[in-house]
Amino acid sequence: MDPAVIKEIQAITGPDNVKTSVEERRCYSYDGRTEGAIPELIVFPSSAREVSAILKLANTHRFPVIPRGQGTGLTGGSVPVDGGVVLSFTRMNRILEIDTANLIAVVEPGVVTFTFQEEAAKKGLFYPPDPASYKYSSIGGNVAECAGGPNSLKYGVTRDYVLGLEVVLPTGEILHLGVRTMKGVVGYDLTRLFVGSEGTLGVITRITLKLIPLPEAKATILALFNEVEEAAETVSAIIAAKVVPSTIEFMDKASIRCSETASPMGLPENVGGLLLIEVDGSRESALVQAEKVRAIAAGHRAIRCDLTENPAEADKLWQARRALSQALYTVAPLKIAEDVVVPRSEIPTLIRSLEAMRERYGIPILSFGHAGDGNFHVNLMIQDTPDDRAKAHEAVKEIFSEALRLGGTMSGEHGIGLSKAAYLGMELSGEVMTAMKRVKQLFDPNNILNPGKIFPD
Amino acid sequence: MDPAVIKEIQAITGPDNVKTSVEERRCYSYDGRTEGAIPELIVFPSSAREVSAILKLANTHRFPVIPRGQGTGLTGGSVPVDGGVVLSFTRMNRILEIDTANLIAVVEPGVVTFTFQEEAAKKGLFYPPDPASYKYSSIGGNVAECAGGPNSLKYGVTRDYVLGLEVVLPTGEILHLGVRTMKGVVGYDLTRLFVGSEGTLGVITRITLKLIPLPEAKATILALFNEVEEAAETVSAIIAAKVVPSTIEFMDKASIRCSETASPMGLPENVGGLLLIEVDGSRESALVQAEKVRAIAAGHRAIRCDLTENPAEADKLWQARRALSQALYTVAPLKIAEDVVVPRSEIPTLIRSLEAMRERYGIPILSFGHAGDGNFHVNLMIQDTPDDRAKAHEAVKEIFSEALRLGGTMSGEHGIGLSKAAYLGMELSGEVMTAMKRVKQLFDPNNILNPGKIFPD
Repeated sequence: MDPAVIKEIQAITGPDNVKTSVEERRCYSYDGRTEGAIPELIVFPSSAREVSAILKLANTHRFPVIPRGQGTGLTGGSVPVDGGVVLSFTRMNRILEIDTANLIAVVEPGVVTFTFQEEAAKKGLFYPPDPASYKYSSIGGNVAECAGGPNSLKYGVTRDYVLGLEVVLPTGEILHLGVRTMKGVVGYDLTRLFVGSEGTLGVITRITLKLIPLPEAKATILALFNEVEEAAETVSAIIAAKVVPSTIEFMDKASIRCSETASPMGLPENVGGLLLIEVDGSRESALVQAEKVRAIAAGHRAIRCDLTENPAEADKLWQARRALSQALYTVAPLKIAEDVVVPRSEIPTLIRSLEAMRERYGIPILSFGHAGDGNFHVNLMIQDTPDDRAKAHEAVKEIFSEALRLGGTMSGEHGIGLSKAAYLGMELSGEVMTAMKRVKQLFDPNNILNPGKIFPD
Repeated sequence: MDPAVIKEIQAITGPDNVKTSVEERRCYSYDGRTEGAIPELIVFPSSAREVSAILKLANTHRFPVIPRGQGTGLTGGSVPVDGGVVLSFTRMNRILEIDTANLIAVVEPGVVTFTFQEEAAKKGLFYPPDPASYKYSSIGGNVAECAGGPNSLKYGVTRDYVLGLEVVLPTGEILHLGVRTMKGVVGYDLTRLFVGSEGTLGVITRITLKLIPLPEAKATILALFNEVEEAAETVSAIIAAKVVPSTIEFMDKASIRCSETASPMGLPENVGGLLLIEVDGSRESALVQAEKVRAIAAGHRAIRCDLTENPAEADKLWQARRALSQALYTVAPLKIAEDVVVPRSEIPTLIRSLEAMRERYGIPILSFGHAGDGNFHVNLMIQDTPDDRAKAHEAVKEIFSEALRLGGTMSGEHGIGLSKAAYLGMELSGEVMTAMKRVKQLFDPNNILNPGKIFPD
């Protein structure tokens, strides 16, 4: 990068907010899964104005700009492909407002999701989106990826809580989009076009969020089944009974064994499926719903069904699920984590197909996830060898193909980023991809913002 | 219009599905409020393929195409500005699927909202969006306008229920967007860009909707207050108490008197404010919530507070609110209906400002609406005289200006269409308007689809 341009950037943010050492730059070359190129510069802006000035410079000198929250993404959305400037939002991490009268909040993009949830909870308010990384991820990244999590089943995803955005276009214009009211239909819904656009259409610098009252009460149920199909049928039966739990987490047999080996909680050897279910609401309804769920599980031959309203005991029931992400690495050193979604009624078919693929490809495939909304985390655990990588590539293609055949989608939460770009044409038609690429070109004519993402080369 | 082009259109849909008589065409020149130009042709397509062929023809011969649901809109969104072809979707009115296992439905755009809600309810499922016109409006029109209604407070607006769309672009490409699962983050969210785009970016030909379980129980509360401020404070107190009613409808003194004159239900003379509140949920929680609401209303000096769980009695409590829309015309023959939204905490200020404007402009201003989400229907009742029209124009400008000053928006439900286009710049910055216009130009380079809407000339 031209030293004169670096000087200009330093003048915009102050020299202390620009990092150039290779040690620091290397830290910004990967996310939760994907390794990319080492960026040329890390810049820590403090305002939309500074972001705008940097983007204008990028258009003049044609260097890539990659916005980055906390880098916990799983598809390489915040990872540089070919040098350029990473914009890190750790300095723009203020909660500007929590308005208890109107149930809204205004935050900067760098606020850690959990920190914000805790501050809201102190005022009796609830910001539901809970991606697995919520203790470390930032709201800006969550918005850019339209993050979801276990409680999306009842509460929806990040999109459902974004009322308004301040966005800097790749060409430098600062847009104020959306509203700070519950409703608003003035002009096109650009707000939600930017949600989930993976940092490719604009840089988010301020977010207006909807909050809801914190539920009064919660109950947690852990149900164990001999057969995975019994767990799957229990999920369908709960939905059919018109109960809407906040969470229905599922673990298959391989996941249960893996978690139990790494962090034993004394689950019986023969458990073929596990459901972890949470219901919440008013004090009157939480326990009634929990008892309904327990009865449904029992009716589907659950071999054990623990129910608690005590938060400390609930934490214990979550142990197997929480231990899992790390425990997977005891199986193999590399994890290919996909997050397909299928209609809930197709869960048993998907599970059987995954079993068959495990046999056929001879690589461990462990699946768990948000069974309530059909969103499965399918983890291929492989050795770092060309052979295993090739097998995994084929298996992933088959997993996507099966999810699509069942009426589902390639991604419920992770987005496309780098790691799924090559598969995009499996889900989207040529016409749809063309329309999306034209939207990208409209907002970013010189392709300076987060280039190389979403679309296949 | 060139008779050869009419012939080509007749060949696409069959001659029976093209109407040319002036009597029929005149019926398509207005919506629920706005009178526009008489279209040259009314066409009733039966498929996306037919819509695509007509749009391709429109690009070749440069004639306007105006998609139309049931024409119940209030801002002229479906009204021709300068002749052209109206596409009416009354033939594409099938419910293609209600999937009870996965809580989704697939419908054609011409399905009447109420018909669809009834079919869903037969299966124990709930499609919440309930615009005032829901008994006659079509889902396609609701999606195009992102319609909301009384129960948006708890259940959100149309956008929150659209999972996927089939859309025909103005240039004729047929796009399949979104998913039929609860989650999906593959590529840009074009689905929600088309929601609320008022028929200007594409023609909706199929809609995948999310459904939720029908609530088990409902309770209705009618609370009367001497002072309008007491009603407003009750709304704030309910929200602060973390109760989320499905509906909080409000009527000011002028609205109550108007309704009572047209359809007497024996409300006391001195009532200054009325709240109609519905709570729903499980049997356990509905009554508990209702009692909480009643206690809050009583604590804010409600002079009467009726509560019922009986649907027939609830219907009686709704009488004043239901009679209102028609009753307004007893005040004056012309209604200018606006639907501003303000943050809930600003409701008392808005009400005071409206009182002052009523005095100042000397025209009846009656307001009622969805107080729970701050969405007010402000109705200026005028004579059809240049003087009254001029006064109303000024008053509307001041109402928008006041809503914006209070942190609100010009429209929560009705959209911009024709009737608010001139005011758009009051809410949106030049940069935002430019970005929106460029999106329009991207999708509709020859400006053939619903021209003259949203943007000021």
